[in-house]
Amino acid sequence: MTVNINRQWLLKSRPIGLTKETDFQMVETIIPELRKGEFLIRNIYLSLDPTNRGWMNPVKTYVPPVKIGSVMRGIGVGIVEKSENPKFPVESIVTGLLGWQDYFISDGSGWMSAIPSLPNVPLPAFLNLFGMIGLTAYFGLMDIGKPQSGETLVVSAAAGAVGSLVGQIGKIKGCRVIGIAGTDEKCSWLTQDLRFDAAINYKTESVFTRMKELCPEGIDIYFANVGGKILDAALGNLNLNARVIVCGLISQYNATDTVPGPSNFPNIVLKRATVKGFIVTDYFKRMNEAFKDFQTWYVSGKLQYREEIVKGLENTPKTFNKLFDGSNRGKLIIKVSEEPIL
Amino acid sequence: MTVNINRQWLLKSRPIGLTKETDFQMVETIIPELRKGEFLIRNIYLSLDPTNRGWMNPVKTYVPPVKIGSVMRGIGVGIVEKSENPKFPVESIVTGLLGWQDYFISDGSGWMSAIPSLPNVPLPAFLNLFGMIGLTAYFGLMDIGKPQSGETLVVSAAAGAVGSLVGQIGKIKGCRVIGIAGTDEKCSWLTQDLRFDAAINYKTESVFTRMKELCPEGIDIYFANVGGKILDAALGNLNLNARVIVCGLISQYNATDTVPGPSNFPNIVLKRATVKGFIVTDYFKRMNEAFKDFQTWYVSGKLQYREEIVKGLENTPKTFNKLFDGSNRGKLIIKVSEEPIL
Repeated sequence: MTVNINRQWLLKSRPIGLTKETDFQMVETIIPELRKGEFLIRNIYLSLDPTNRGWMNPVKTYVPPVKIGSVMRGIGVGIVEKSENPKFPVESIVTGLLGWQDYFISDGSGWMSAIPSLPNVPLPAFLNLFGMIGLTAYFGLMDIGKPQSGETLVVSAAAGAVGSLVGQIGKIKGCRVIGIAGTDEKCSWLTQDLRFDAAINYKTESVFTRMKELCPEGIDIYFANVGGKILDAALGNLNLNARVIVCGLISQYNATDTVPGPSNFPNIVLKRATVKGFIVTDYFKRMNEAFKDFQTWYVSGKLQYREEIVKGLENTPKTFNKLFDGSNRGKLIIKVSEEPIL
Repeated sequence: MTVNINRQWLLKSRPIGLTKETDFQMVETIIPELRKGEFLIRNIYLSLDPTNRGWMNPVKTYVPPVKIGSVMRGIGVGIVEKSENPKFPVESIVTGLLGWQDYFISDGSGWMSAIPSLPNVPLPAFLNLFGMIGLTAYFGLMDIGKPQSGETLVVSAAAGAVGSLVGQIGKIKGCRVIGIAGTDEKCSWLTQDLRFDAAINYKTESVFTRMKELCPEGIDIYFANVGGKILDAALGNLNLNARVIVCGLISQYNATDTVPGPSNFPNIVLKRATVKGFIVTDYFKRMNEAFKDFQTWYVSGKLQYREEIVKGLENTPKTFNKLFDGSNRGKLIIKVSEEPIL
């Protein structure tokens, strides 16, 4: 790799079901000269998130779909290497939609921000706790869930990046927290390391029955990261005035057919429940509220997280499906290039 | 019928699907002497409501199921004919769960209230606008829907007792109102008499496509009286920050199998929608707020309603299914006995 070559993963075809490596194509392009106002960012860390899968479909969601033949969209952290923009001088560390590529040329428009200087926070954390993941967990739980001490909080995909933070914030707020995950190893991480009150292995246990046993008075707050049967089991176990935060429906992102909705939907009426969807981008302007709490909790050891960092941009497509087969352990990140020694 | 005989419709068996007359049995019992604190109410009007169907199932909903062999539960308006209770003297007009029978003996416990004296309000209106129906429409729309002038409100079962009031209150609040009903006659009643902006006949039109045409910017408020495909079409046509009031799911009340939930459920996330279930009994303590507005609007002719009054307690079971086959026009009421000339 010479400095004026940029490796880029283009979206070659719309995936059907799980993505295949052949849905993407790597090309090498020559990095053009910068125009006035532009700056060149070297990608250091690239975030892989379930929501990326939705961006590959030919429908507008909360963002337009990625065009066929375009660089696949992705959030990254990088360093400015050349700059014709005084707001983003050389050596600035920035975050934004850098894409699945080695380099990104920005003119500062769209989502592009300098990373705040937080002492003792490692760079990948800005794709995790101090990024979209943390904001999603924080505002979903706090703003919609409104956790009260003594309430029962249930989280699906609880060992995932968002879910594990939701549960820990719930514990900080005094909730009884039950997590749902797909391996015994993840379940014991939740109960032993993160101090969840209980965990359900949805692959070996009946989620509905276990929820009923573990939540005899019903679920007060349900944080839905996945749809399908697990969501349905939760809707069937709600307490009066329950809040259901619909953050994501991971289990449905790769669906090729229409997915039936939850058959326990009528329980929303009986339990006077509130089901609320949200997208984290709506909360960007309130970012500092969350980060202030996170710094306190992180420094005092109250918030833990795991990350799985895979080296090499070339491994991006084949790594992506780990988000959906349950094999990733913690926040999935591609290390595209070395961190600067600043 | 002599005065000391009480005809009672007992629930004989749990209906499967639509109720059959043979699910009920009429018995004649002798009215016992009153004990201290009791009073005898002659039933005048008996309300038939979709929610009654749920009470016949063997599952606790927001009230316990009606026991096999018990008098079928129902809301009525009646007059006190004998009294050993100073709070409810003879000739009081009362409302409460009088049941499917000629007479009810109450000790004043449970839901039993004297009807407020509202000039020019006919008695059946206390089972309609000035009863559960009106309160359901009012608090569902106002408290959960929070209608703003210029917003688009869509109502299902719009020619029904609740739906027709919801639409009219929406118009009063400045909304564009679209109703969904099952006959052309009902649709023209909505647009011509009630001044809805448009109506969709779900039996002859594609609800999803028509909603898309009529709500190019999406639905801001959806008042769900029915589930199934119509709810799904609405969830597929939401505007950003939509509110979905789940009042009832009439189309599912007779279901014998598990009913799949709405497949457009993921749209709740994309549209940051709020889906909220509610039960009108939670709002009883705020009744007077609604009745104050209703009196103003009713007297000034801004609220119209239709009622279909069927004579004779003996006709109750056979009349009940009109709520589900779409053949009733307006609030369905059984006239059990004559109104007093006071």
